[in-house]
Amino acid sequence: MTATPATETTGPAAPYEPTDRTVPTRSRERAHYDRETVHAILDEAYLCHLGFVRDGAPVVLPTLFARVGEALYLHGSTGSRPLRAAGREDPGLPACVTVTHLDGLVLARSAFHHSINYRSVVVHGTAREVTDEAERRLALDALVDHVVPGRSADSRPANARELAATAVIRLDLDEVSAKVRTGGPNDDAEDLALPHWAGVVPVAPTYGTLVPAADLAPGVAVPDYLTAP
Amino acid sequence: MTATPATETTGPAAPYEPTDRTVPTRSRERAHYDRETVHAILDEAYLCHLGFVRDGAPVVLPTLFARVGEALYLHGSTGSRPLRAAGREDPGLPACVTVTHLDGLVLARSAFHHSINYRSVVVHGTAREVTDEAERRLALDALVDHVVPGRSADSRPANARELAATAVIRLDLDEVSAKVRTGGPNDDAEDLALPHWAGVVPVAPTYGTLVPAADLAPGVAVPDYLTAP
Repeated sequence: MTATPATETTGPAAPYEPTDRTVPTRSRERAHYDRETVHAILDEAYLCHLGFVRDGAPVVLPTLFARVGEALYLHGSTGSRPLRAAGREDPGLPACVTVTHLDGLVLARSAFHHSINYRSVVVHGTAREVTDEAERRLALDALVDHVVPGRSADSRPANARELAATAVIRLDLDEVSAKVRTGGPNDDAEDLALPHWAGVVPVAPTYGTLVPAADLAPGVAVPDYLTAP
Repeated sequence: MTATPATETTGPAAPYEPTDRTVPTRSRERAHYDRETVHAILDEAYLCHLGFVRDGAPVVLPTLFARVGEALYLHGSTGSRPLRAAGREDPGLPACVTVTHLDGLVLARSAFHHSINYRSVVVHGTAREVTDEAERRLALDALVDHVVPGRSADSRPANARELAATAVIRLDLDEVSAKVRTGGPNDDAEDLALPHWAGVVPVAPTYGTLVPAADLAPGVAVPDYLTAP
């Protein structure tokens, strides 16, 4: 377990090294290993799906995450099962973290070529509990700021009781790949004249009107970081 | 392996039976086992995250799915690794399928109580390849119609070559739970007067302007099922 906070890579960084499990068996042209692509996909997401093995069976749970440099941080209750497992120094928690953005529904003339446009990142590795207090603070701030940049400075920091109840785990970005599909349908040439509409229905998340807490203290204004374009 | 297509349950259906792995260790009040809640969450999604175990390590991949009655269907190339594994009759592919909707960012006065509003379903079980041709056709139509209702009837059906290249796997809805968080932040009473804005930023997917395929045949109109509200 490393107690050193991850730092941003400086200078030109080599891409992630492909491995047997990060090279897809199909559509290899959709795979990307450069850090810029991977980081952009991760940073645009709030939620990841954390996979781990319990009693020999896979478990996939949605959870918040944040990237700091070449590490992902996840957190949860010290009582949660995967976080307890990650706290065992050896072997830690073999984990797979996947982040996916759905960008469009791809309608082809043929049922077979229907698809989606998406950007995903899959990270394989071993998650380990973070015990260094400075790194824990950095990770917890990052988790809040990843959801709303600037927010950690505009909220009450965790107190000792809350810190004691929170486990932080770290998964280093070593064995990583992105997969991206863009563009229109890839119909077979002999299907192009069929009378079925073909194209893409774009999909993107949008933000609705802010809903203030029912018990919001009078006079508390909406902060700029929530209204800036 | 069953060759009988799953059918809708008729009459009042019992909730899914909670098991050790579908009862959360925390926030148990967020767990739901009724079929109506589970089905609604599944049917509103296009993408699931499929978890399986390879060489002892977890793998989580995004993929399309469709629900038909009390079964989930997934498909892919016959060459893909998890689908090949599911094709082995015994033991099939131990799998976990998770579907998550992000509904809002929950900003609390305290960093600790930041959260998200979400609806998720986790399905545990063993995925098995579907070999019955009628059930395969039903599943493939459902996969297209799940993305755009009515679309399978308005596209060229799969031909023999395409069918031969496509594996369909089925995961029955037996060991299933939903988890739902709604509402505003749950700050501690002593934090309510703090000068930090608190509330929810709603998030929802929206659909953009249709992008016709560059090679769309002249005169092909946008179908009603893509423009209906």
